[in-house]
Amino acid sequence: MITDVTAAPFLQTLVTQIRAQDPYGVYRAWSDELLLKPYILSKEEKRRIPVDTPVDPVTKGRITYFYGAIAREIEQQTGKLMQVVVSLNEEGFGWVLVFSGKLLVVSRTLRDAQRFGFISLEQMAEDGAKAIRSGIALVERFPAVTEA
Amino acid sequence: MITDVTAAPFLQTLVTQIRAQDPYGVYRAWSDELLLKPYILSKEEKRRIPVDTPVDPVTKGRITYFYGAIAREIEQQTGKLMQVVVSLNEEGFGWVLVFSGKLLVVSRTLRDAQRFGFISLEQMAEDGAKAIRSGIALVERFPAVTEA
Repeated sequence: MITDVTAAPFLQTLVTQIRAQDPYGVYRAWSDELLLKPYILSKEEKRRIPVDTPVDPVTKGRITYFYGAIAREIEQQTGKLMQVVVSLNEEGFGWVLVFSGKLLVVSRTLRDAQRFGFISLEQMAEDGAKAIRSGIALVERFPAVTEA
Repeated sequence: MITDVTAAPFLQTLVTQIRAQDPYGVYRAWSDELLLKPYILSKEEKRRIPVDTPVDPVTKGRITYFYGAIAREIEQQTGKLMQVVVSLNEEGFGWVLVFSGKLLVVSRTLRDAQRFGFISLEQMAEDGAKAIRSGIALVERFPAVTEA
């Protein structure tokens, strides 16, 4: 059990990602918890978000920051530059791809992306850490592909 | 010099891709040349297409068919299933990614995608063939990555 869950390394990277995109300093007075709050959705809250409309730009930004933070962590631990592509269709279905050279380091399909979120900060931290671990393992297994 | 350029294998695959998405049979009476005509743009015609508006769905469809045809050709020649992701932002900038497993077989950045097109059918056939050749070479070089 982490007492201050926002101290988890992945969540700290995510917070840094979000704060970096704050040209007017709106988030300066916000705590990390408050900044991450929109990522936390109960099952009931998810159900209330309609999935028959396109993903709104704020939600898409949230998804991009999340996978951007994963990419940054993999970059720091492997020294390879990563690209992030989030591609969603009108129905909230699509792909998230993190790649380096010709290696797809993270590839996930998204469904109902309008409802992107996690039950808890702990679950979010674990999901990010899992993607980071498997991404690093791929880079270590196929280093030549990142240079191709 | 190819007399009937639409006989080029890549262009035939592209024609098949387009005809496959024709639920009302609109294209049934169209020649292959007519079907491919929107891909051919002179420099002057490109200049006349504004790039300060998002890529319209028809142009995006055209890009998707083009890379879909490349993916199908690589599939046929390698036996590996390919996914195609076309991700464009509001300014017509973005990525086209064709991948199999964890291998990025084709990865291209697009700029001014509103103006997607080629000077001639020959140039289009050559561009497609080039992407197919380099994609197949990657699959042959890193077969294990397509299974990862």
